[in-house]
Amino acid sequence: MINDNKAYAQREKAYMQGKLYPDVRVGMIKVNLTPTVTRDEHGIPHMEPNEPVYIYDTSGPYTDPDYKVDLKKGLPAMRQQWIDNRKKAGQPVTQIACAKAGIITPEMEYVAIRENMNCESLGIKSHITPDYVREEIARGRAVIPANINHPESEPMIIGRNFAVKINTNIGNSATTSSIDEEVEKSVWSCKWGGDTVMDLSTGNNIHETREWILRNSPVPVGTVPIYQALEKVNGKVEDLSWEVYRDTLIEQCEQGVDYFTIHAGIRRHNVHLADSRLCGIVSRGGSIMSKWCLIHDKESFLYEHFDDICDIVARYDVALSLGDGLRPGCTADANDAAQFAELDTMGELVLRAWDKNVQAFIEGPGHVPMHKIRENMERQLDKCHEAPFYTLGPIVTDIAPGYDHITSAIGGAQIAWLGTAMLCYVTPKEHLALPNKEDVRAGIIAYKIAAHAADLAKGHPGATIRDNALSKARFEFRWRDQFHLSLDPERALQYFEEAGHTDGEYCTMCGPDFCAAKLTHDLRRIKK
Amino acid sequence: MINDNKAYAQREKAYMQGKLYPDVRVGMIKVNLTPTVTRDEHGIPHMEPNEPVYIYDTSGPYTDPDYKVDLKKGLPAMRQQWIDNRKKAGQPVTQIACAKAGIITPEMEYVAIRENMNCESLGIKSHITPDYVREEIARGRAVIPANINHPESEPMIIGRNFAVKINTNIGNSATTSSIDEEVEKSVWSCKWGGDTVMDLSTGNNIHETREWILRNSPVPVGTVPIYQALEKVNGKVEDLSWEVYRDTLIEQCEQGVDYFTIHAGIRRHNVHLADSRLCGIVSRGGSIMSKWCLIHDKESFLYEHFDDICDIVARYDVALSLGDGLRPGCTADANDAAQFAELDTMGELVLRAWDKNVQAFIEGPGHVPMHKIRENMERQLDKCHEAPFYTLGPIVTDIAPGYDHITSAIGGAQIAWLGTAMLCYVTPKEHLALPNKEDVRAGIIAYKIAAHAADLAKGHPGATIRDNALSKARFEFRWRDQFHLSLDPERALQYFEEAGHTDGEYCTMCGPDFCAAKLTHDLRRIKK
Repeated sequence: MINDNKAYAQREKAYMQGKLYPDVRVGMIKVNLTPTVTRDEHGIPHMEPNEPVYIYDTSGPYTDPDYKVDLKKGLPAMRQQWIDNRKKAGQPVTQIACAKAGIITPEMEYVAIRENMNCESLGIKSHITPDYVREEIARGRAVIPANINHPESEPMIIGRNFAVKINTNIGNSATTSSIDEEVEKSVWSCKWGGDTVMDLSTGNNIHETREWILRNSPVPVGTVPIYQALEKVNGKVEDLSWEVYRDTLIEQCEQGVDYFTIHAGIRRHNVHLADSRLCGIVSRGGSIMSKWCLIHDKESFLYEHFDDICDIVARYDVALSLGDGLRPGCTADANDAAQFAELDTMGELVLRAWDKNVQAFIEGPGHVPMHKIRENMERQLDKCHEAPFYTLGPIVTDIAPGYDHITSAIGGAQIAWLGTAMLCYVTPKEHLALPNKEDVRAGIIAYKIAAHAADLAKGHPGATIRDNALSKARFEFRWRDQFHLSLDPERALQYFEEAGHTDGEYCTMCGPDFCAAKLTHDLRRIKK
Repeated sequence: MINDNKAYAQREKAYMQGKLYPDVRVGMIKVNLTPTVTRDEHGIPHMEPNEPVYIYDTSGPYTDPDYKVDLKKGLPAMRQQWIDNRKKAGQPVTQIACAKAGIITPEMEYVAIRENMNCESLGIKSHITPDYVREEIARGRAVIPANINHPESEPMIIGRNFAVKINTNIGNSATTSSIDEEVEKSVWSCKWGGDTVMDLSTGNNIHETREWILRNSPVPVGTVPIYQALEKVNGKVEDLSWEVYRDTLIEQCEQGVDYFTIHAGIRRHNVHLADSRLCGIVSRGGSIMSKWCLIHDKESFLYEHFDDICDIVARYDVALSLGDGLRPGCTADANDAAQFAELDTMGELVLRAWDKNVQAFIEGPGHVPMHKIRENMERQLDKCHEAPFYTLGPIVTDIAPGYDHITSAIGGAQIAWLGTAMLCYVTPKEHLALPNKEDVRAGIIAYKIAAHAADLAKGHPGATIRDNALSKARFEFRWRDQFHLSLDPERALQYFEEAGHTDGEYCTMCGPDFCAAKLTHDLRRIKK
């Protein structure tokens, strides 16, 4: 079990059952709170209970005390029966095809329950019903990435009318880190709240690393298949071909990858648009495909074979994440002709994906100063027909290497509020080195903050519950309750204990005489 | 010298001289860059020089190698001659009175030069001239906090048509930390970029702690005088009186405090507006004054004696920071009747301050979800007649104790873009404990990011220069140049070195075959 320490003593794993599908069991974190204690004029204490708060849980079976972790065996194949049942019933394979056919899948009911954390227990009305989920998927406005060969994954939904999600990147490179480390990081990512994980490995053992990650991942896994294809041709961009790429796609579909980043938006005639840039092309896939186009003086095989790609992934329900190979790599290059030309192409491709009953979303920048963020979102909604937007940050200033989780959380919160459905995290090591576990944690928490701030601003059903429960606990000096409700209970508790605090009605920040909360309580007593 | 290590080898202290006042010498950081090296088809290297970049410098004499630090002696009294000259010439004491009289003070020329970093060297046009500074101060839209008894301070300007500034809070409480630690923290704050520092000490030795901080502070120092007044009456709120408060004000004016937070906006009849709040009153000064009003069932002496306060501070040119005693302490309480009633009162008070030739600005929240930030700024501009706004964050979600430097940098960047002139930093320890030095550093860097992001979005003259120089260095693998241009050169270098990097044309993030920057350089060679 991941959370086997005192910082989590008041948290427990809970499950909510489906109504349409009784075998839908949605895991969540139940935070048990202590009562509010007030004293009357005779000093006699009064207890008022505080309702438990439920938190969206990405940690999967790892936090279930009844589950025995065995990385060699992998996680239970929770969705296998649903996938088999659809096959037996002759239903379509992809969620979007089911949705268009009017079928509410167990995955759709699962995410509807998951999105409505606290709504049922507190009687909060939510627009998110299983049928609403189906409608959003049918319209292409939302995606449930769920490869039929990754039955271990717990369904989650990416769309702007749902809670904002975050992705974390892991993966080794030729110069560093091992399989064990990467599997550990993927589980670690789920512990802290990563909604999906991308395995961006580029070194040796790509296949094997991915296998371990997939079998042990309760969240959808994404990849950038061109990385493995390039390894297959020994790093020689000019030797890449549709055939090598196609075989790589099929290999990864078979393994169970839930979504692929595909840089099919780069057109031969648009590559030159990046020439005048300060930072050229900073997407690895984008620079590979641009180089290929120039060397061969040909249209990219990803663009040419886009329909073939769709036909392959549709058989597995792998979602396409249309990669922004020409995303800006510095604030000076934001919103330029190269970036927007590619966005136009992605808008064309997403329609072709939908025609083939393939779920798809669009990747976005990158580096964008604040006053240029809105244009990104509005243009994406317009050109890409409301397909979900999945952005990397954006980083809003370039002057803070070592702190880009913060520069990008600032941009991420804003673009998510405006409608971005998923944020790809950035760690403190961005631009400098590969992240270690503590960097992953720091990146995730920064992005959970950005995503949740956007949920509050968008009015996601029940989003304020956790904030308000925590604020009430803070005001009432229920310190442990406050920490258990927080994004990182371990860190909060650590800071509290390091300061030598006890559970009294003040803290070392102000001391007893200057505690505003204590004074307010006094003040309320005066008025009584 | 503070920055005596290799992370700063390419930085040097530079000075720019005034034109109106030749004894105006504005310190700045000059970052010397290495040339760009390109190779022609024969592999012969070509060198192209990169212009030095100047950075706004808050570190004062501490980073001047010709200055010998002696905390016991204190910093040189740089402004003493200007203050004496004004006195001899029979000119007004306060910057706002001078401004209204058409006098451009040396302080005004100083800040004009300071705001235009890189403009002269790069030929960038700027709207900020010494006379523009004068006009903004005369209109009350900007403030130069500069007590005549703090001649050690280097002039800086707070106003929304200037670069966004940040304040840091230091100070001990009854339960922790010593004078040495607090002086060290104030110098440390200047090193990392704090534009002003507030000494919020509440324990013993308030006077002595402040004296040490003032004599060694090259940035304006603010305080909340009610804290010391309360110590004088042994922590008994009911014993506070105008007389005790007045004497405290004079004591601190004499010492050289540059601005006072004064919670004069709390009216007796508005206190009850906080009753229905989730978190009541969270401002220490606000809760003290509210309690006083209730106990005595009287209008607050700060409000009643506001004109007397103005008369006192006008003699020293201490600026007033009208404190928001009823600021919201959680997102649920944001933008409520209590907060806005106080803002209305502050709008009334700021006019009275200006009438008395007192510089003034307005403090703001606190905790505000993103969708309610704009209303704060627009209402403040409207109700407070464009007096500068000085906000604490705002924190945009309550669920991240341990990370509130990030939750609040998200809100801070947005409100600063909309027009807030100065942001009060928040450290990772907010709500949990007093910050240590590393927390101060983390808080400052998060806020420098927010402030600079806002400068970029607002189009502050020359603000993009540093971003673009850093991005160019990054793209050209001039790693050391990149780090020297960054907000925290030590951290960037540390991450780089820990990863075992050398100065080659790739890093461990992607390895040599997958480096997009390297590929782009190849690609540009292909096209040639």
